Amino acid sequence: MKRNTQLKIRFELTRLQTERICSPLEIEDYVPQPIVDVSPPKWHLGHTTWFFEAFILKDYLEGYKVFDEGYSYLFNSYYNNAGKRVERHNRGFMSRPLVREVMEYRQYVTQKCVELLESSPPKNVLDIVEIGINHEQQHQELLVYDIKYILGMQPLLPIYGNGFSTSEELSEGFAPFKAGLYEIGAETKGFSYDNELGKHQVYLQEFEIAKKLVSNGEYLEFMKAGGYRDFDLWLSEGWDFVQRERLEAPLYWHQRGKDWYNYSLKGLEKVDLSLPLQHVSFYEAQAFATWKGMRLPTEYEWEVASGRLNWGQLWEWTNSAYLPYPGYRKMPGALGEYNGKFMSNQYVLRGGSVATPYGHSRMTYRNFFHATSRWLFSGIRLIK
Amino acid sequence: MKRNTQLKIRFELTRLQTERICSPLEIEDYVPQPIVDVSPPKWHLGHTTWFFEAFILKDYLEGYKVFDEGYSYLFNSYYNNAGKRVERHNRGFMSRPLVREVMEYRQYVTQKCVELLESSPPKNVLDIVEIGINHEQQHQELLVYDIKYILGMQPLLPIYGNGFSTSEELSEGFAPFKAGLYEIGAETKGFSYDNELGKHQVYLQEFEIAKKLVSNGEYLEFMKAGGYRDFDLWLSEGWDFVQRERLEAPLYWHQRGKDWYNYSLKGLEKVDLSLPLQHVSFYEAQAFATWKGMRLPTEYEWEVASGRLNWGQLWEWTNSAYLPYPGYRKMPGALGEYNGKFMSNQYVLRGGSVATPYGHSRMTYRNFFHATSRWLFSGIRLIK
Amino acid sequence: MKRNTQLKIRFELTRLQTERICSPLEIEDYVPQPIVDVSPPKWHLGHTTWFFEAFILKDYLEGYKVFDEGYSYLFNSYYNNAGKRVERHNRGFMSRPLVREVMEYRQYVTQKCVELLESSPPKNVLDIVEIGINHEQQHQELLVYDIKYILGMQPLLPIYGNGFSTSEELSEGFAPFKAGLYEIGAETKGFSYDNELGKHQVYLQEFEIAKKLVSNGEYLEFMKAGGYRDFDLWLSEGWDFVQRERLEAPLYWHQRGKDWYNYSLKGLEKVDLSLPLQHVSFYEAQAFATWKGMRLPTEYEWEVASGRLNWGQLWEWTNSAYLPYPGYRKMPGALGEYNGKFMSNQYVLRGGSVATPYGHSRMTYRNFFHATSRWLFSGIRLIK
Amino acid sequence: MKRNTQLKIRFELTRLQTERICSPLEIEDYVPQPIVDVSPPKWHLGHTTWFFEAFILKDYLEGYKVFDEGYSYLFNSYYNNAGKRVERHNRGFMSRPLVREVMEYRQYVTQKCVELLESSPPKNVLDIVEIGINHEQQHQELLVYDIKYILGMQPLLPIYGNGFSTSEELSEGFAPFKAGLYEIGAETKGFSYDNELGKHQVYLQEFEIAKKLVSNGEYLEFMKAGGYRDFDLWLSEGWDFVQRERLEAPLYWHQRGKDWYNYSLKGLEKVDLSLPLQHVSFYEAQAFATWKGMRLPTEYEWEVASGRLNWGQLWEWTNSAYLPYPGYRKMPGALGEYNGKFMSNQYVLRGGSVATPYGHSRMTYRNFFHATSRWLFSGIRLIK
Repeated sequence: MKRNTQLKIRFELTRLQTERICSPLEIEDYVPQPIVDVSPPKWHLGHTTWFFEAFILKDYLEGYKVFDEGYSYLFNSYYNNAGKRVERHNRGFMSRPLVREVMEYRQYVTQKCVELLESSPPKNVLDIVEIGINHEQQHQELLVYDIKYILGMQPLLPIYGNGFSTSEELSEGFAPFKAGLYEIGAETKGFSYDNELGKHQVYLQEFEIAKKLVSNGEYLEFMKAGGYRDFDLWLSEGWDFVQRERLEAPLYWHQRGKDWYNYSLKGLEKVDLSLPLQHVSFYEAQAFATWKGMRLPTEYEWEVASGRLNWGQLWEWTNSAYLPYPGYRKMPGALGEYNGKFMSNQYVLRGGSVATPYGHSRMTYRNFFHATSRWLFSGIRLIK
Repeated sequence: MKRNTQLKIRFELTRLQTERICSPLEIEDYVPQPIVDVSPPKWHLGHTTWFFEAFILKDYLEGYKVFDEGYSYLFNSYYNNAGKRVERHNRGFMSRPLVREVMEYRQYVTQKCVELLESSPPKNVLDIVEIGINHEQQHQELLVYDIKYILGMQPLLPIYGNGFSTSEELSEGFAPFKAGLYEIGAETKGFSYDNELGKHQVYLQEFEIAKKLVSNGEYLEFMKAGGYRDFDLWLSEGWDFVQRERLEAPLYWHQRGKDWYNYSLKGLEKVDLSLPLQHVSFYEAQAFATWKGMRLPTEYEWEVASGRLNWGQLWEWTNSAYLPYPGYRKMPGALGEYNGKFMSNQYVLRGGSVATPYGHSRMTYRNFFHATSRWLFSGIRLIK
Repeated sequence: MKRNTQLKIRFELTRLQTERICSPLEIEDYVPQPIVDVSPPKWHLGHTTWFFEAFILKDYLEGYKVFDEGYSYLFNSYYNNAGKRVERHNRGFMSRPLVREVMEYRQYVTQKCVELLESSPPKNVLDIVEIGINHEQQHQELLVYDIKYILGMQPLLPIYGNGFSTSEELSEGFAPFKAGLYEIGAETKGFSYDNELGKHQVYLQEFEIAKKLVSNGEYLEFMKAGGYRDFDLWLSEGWDFVQRERLEAPLYWHQRGKDWYNYSLKGLEKVDLSLPLQHVSFYEAQAFATWKGMRLPTEYEWEVASGRLNWGQLWEWTNSAYLPYPGYRKMPGALGEYNGKFMSNQYVLRGGSVATPYGHSRMTYRNFFHATSRWLFSGIRLIK
Repeated sequence: MKRNTQLKIRFELTRLQTERICSPLEIEDYVPQPIVDVSPPKWHLGHTTWFFEAFILKDYLEGYKVFDEGYSYLFNSYYNNAGKRVERHNRGFMSRPLVREVMEYRQYVTQKCVELLESSPPKNVLDIVEIGINHEQQHQELLVYDIKYILGMQPLLPIYGNGFSTSEELSEGFAPFKAGLYEIGAETKGFSYDNELGKHQVYLQEFEIAKKLVSNGEYLEFMKAGGYRDFDLWLSEGWDFVQRERLEAPLYWHQRGKDWYNYSLKGLEKVDLSLPLQHVSFYEAQAFATWKGMRLPTEYEWEVASGRLNWGQLWEWTNSAYLPYPGYRKMPGALGEYNGKFMSNQYVLRGGSVATPYGHSRMTYRNFFHATSRWLFSGIRLIK
């Protein structure tokens, strides 16, 4: 199949999947922004559409007529190069455009992109479409996080439905690796982000990595042992975070009498001790590892070991700061704002989650969040 | 007509009117809370309903079944006596219950109240219904303010429709009053709030009060004369407010090139210089009066003069702090939280506005807001 | 004695008294600003001096050479008309000028003012000297408050020494007053501030006023009865204040085991139940009065009753907002910023305290503070 | 010389040097804390003394009598294991104990430590003395930063005196290094902190490192080219920092007309273009490097290259996050809080500065600060 045809199919499926994720929502659920990290579903729908309009259709589809001039201001995220925008913390106040108008915007842009793709555009356009698809896939995953957060903070705890659930991890024990030189990073075959490019060698000490993620049951032991009250286990800023937010359990855990319940997209249920623990911050992951007398992997160790692990249920916190690889070059123009400018004060997570779109993750993929983030689908893997 | 029948009719009309005010809204518009003062329309719909359920139906309708136990937590406002509640600044995150569910809640409670009213309940019940009607009327006015704020902050500046608009004031000059003892406050005939009861004498100096409100044109002169940049005109906390918020015009005024436009419920239009100025804070009203070499009325002067004024287009800032009248007694129980507990750091406004429900205002009515509030329908009347 | 001679003596005594208040301090105590309301003693010493330099010497003493051009920026308080200044919350960072340099500044300005006063300057200069003396007396009182706060927040609770202490109030019962017209405000004989001028009539209802202030013992009963936990007793913003600051006792009270101790300038001692209660906010005064089934006086009631009261131990909170009297006119120029611009969101206190300089208070004197202030020498008198 | 004798001499010299750094200060300068990062000089004097008392004398000197029980609360910094303490941001409000009392505390503890050292204590005690000396040396450097900040923010810009000044860097060009495996980290001979221990191999790509630091002149070109206004040069959080703080020059630079002046400990002087640039944050260093088309070194590159560089005038920002080396183990007990718990959201700086005590730095030393810190003696070295 020709690349443009193949891309067209992937493009249409991606567009459809975003809308499917939203289909269980009521119109009201598309609007709120309960914390600054969470964007309204309506915004994700518009923003992923604006991306194709701003970076492809306006420049490469002859005679393209912008759907609504005001939408750029509303649906730009952080691209300084692409002009002014609604400040991030104001997204939840935008009742307009309406959900149905955003859906019309989506259909219009999808249709126009399909037209463009059918016209066999040059390689540089196809490359940006590729980025656009990957960009929308990232937002699909964020959509799941944000929908869960919005529904999970309703006092009435509504049910979203099935999907995006984890299962018990069955493998046991630790896999050993020898000290030595290893190759890290992606080659340019297949799609990769700029931040994972630049295959290079790193020297690692020997290590053993857990074959499975930490379970709810193991974490509950940490809680019962007073883990949230023992400052010796925590990094200094982690301890400040615990005090400030009065943390005593993972996000979405509710205590009812003596028992712990967990809110999932299926509603509130008693915590299943055998399932992998999720929704912890880096600081909680680090404190738990310290309590166990172990530590978190570096992103290099994780990448080297990944071939022998069953990964993909939850993103795994590493103890690596998000920094550029040797020889890192960001893309020119607005797309250069995509990854490189976030390379300070964030941690790398590796793997993928049940909310990660099919084909969107890989062994070299570098996800990144702040150390205090808890609303993503994150888990813990240990090194000893 | 018997009191219960009369109340039933007024009750049903009030309930209907609240829903009519919302009828031009789209579902998305019912959700956001752009500033803490503004509540989502959905919340007003639920809260005014909860009031009847919590203070009447639960106690006085035999066999009444609460519509949804969780709603009390969602729709209580500040009644500490009535239990826990969603914190005020979180109202905009409540996508649930849905608008249609809140409407069902309304129908259910309206219907049950009608049943109760038809059963000729005792006087104390009728008295609380009276309060409930007045309470809902107050929220009707707030609804208009809040809807205007929500729509007015959308970058796309959507149109609500006709209604709630002011007209030019035609009378000229000042009305003089002599020094002497005057009677202030309401007698207990007809409905009045606790805060206006207690007819009592006050001694006033002679004064002259403007027959009309300050116009947009007059205020524009103040702006052009540098009124927003001359600290000598402002109270100290007013000047802090101007600096902090970088104020340079009334709320809803937009500068386009050299011209000033005004957002009203009919959309964005050039400022009409002949219309009464609205959406200024107490501090702006006070600075403007100082610039004119005049001052604002006290609430006593206003009440004494009100018989000779055409009032009712906009609430009029007075230079009176909101304090109890001599012999003030608040109502017992939760309803006692209605007025008295707000008697600090607020200013009295007198009159009424185009958004005030019919029959809801009167010469003795004491409205009150903080000195920095601008989203209410407020205007300026001068004393010399 | 001629007015200039008399003023010269009062001027010199006032300057001396300010320095005497500071004499028990160590150099380090002159520097900190633990809360924004509290100014460093060094700043008071410089500011009261700057006042004479800026408003008198620069304009009226021929050939006067400013002590240091940079001091105006450091020691101006809020006079916008008198130029730029160190922002209020930064006063505690100014280690320079040194205490000894500020003392030299004081001597220099005192000496120059004495020279000017000896030269029989015209009336308008004498009038400003009069204001300057009163201004410095006000700062003498603030100095005592601020010194107490600075020392009282040291973990080591150092002792200042004797002085400024209250004594038991012995009179009992309530003094009754009839309804009627009363005269309020100061005449222009003798010194008065602009805010108390304008003798005018007010009509009062009958009332009875307590002959003594509320004692520590009575307040302790309120505390034991759960006064700080019963929201029904509090104004809404008062309740927010209690929650936000986690208040459970007056300022300077410390619980040791079951007993309450009080920090005074003499150090930490067990609370003396017979002494008048001090260091409560308006909100606490109001809640206590409500708990007693009584209320606070208005400033008019207080002024009318003052002839029959023993006042002067503590400033007494009234339930009157600080607003202009009829016909109020502020002074022209920078001195006009003295009083009028604070007339919003503050409460009037009447009387005087053990820290008030001799001759600085009078029956018409209107002191004012925010409802949350606790570090002033404030107390409670009840009305029934 | 025996180890205890040698340590005794170093101990006494270190104690003396701390006091020498403070000797140009006036008593008032010992008190303020203008930003939370800056501690009052008095606090440093007390804290370094408390360290010896808390971790050595109390446990290892028989019959030791604590100088003042209250001092532990005042002079503990962040050691949770060592009990409660004054919150960091309140250090500037502590006028007591007085400077002379803190000096007495110093003499007392110095004398007692000398006694202990003369008694030939066991190795574990000597090891803690070694840490205490290094700890005090770190505070000596912070003292210089903090004194400069306190004096530099005085509107009167007082002079501290000579010392701690940089000189022009004369070497030119770049030094090349080949790709390959290099050894990183300290061996346990000689004193090292836990964070630099664990010699291990890292694989580096080839690189060229500048032989000299960036000069004021080069940085001024960046400023003139609009570097502070071009968001493309900045990391995302760096750009937020520039906007929020309205940065447009390094700390201590003042614009007078068209010229730039620099505050140093010798007072305000015109910027010397030939001297190394100092007082920039990591974000400014990174933006400057990006503007140059170069980058900052990693801490590994720096360490490998350090033998061929003239370093030691200013700490050099690296693009390495402060993270544990392989096999990192923190010390047990309170001393374990020394380094490890800060390993999140900070950047490593390498080298040393003119304010670093003699013998306190080395090629393996890992200093660390937040990316926004500007008050330390920091500079920029480039990689191409």
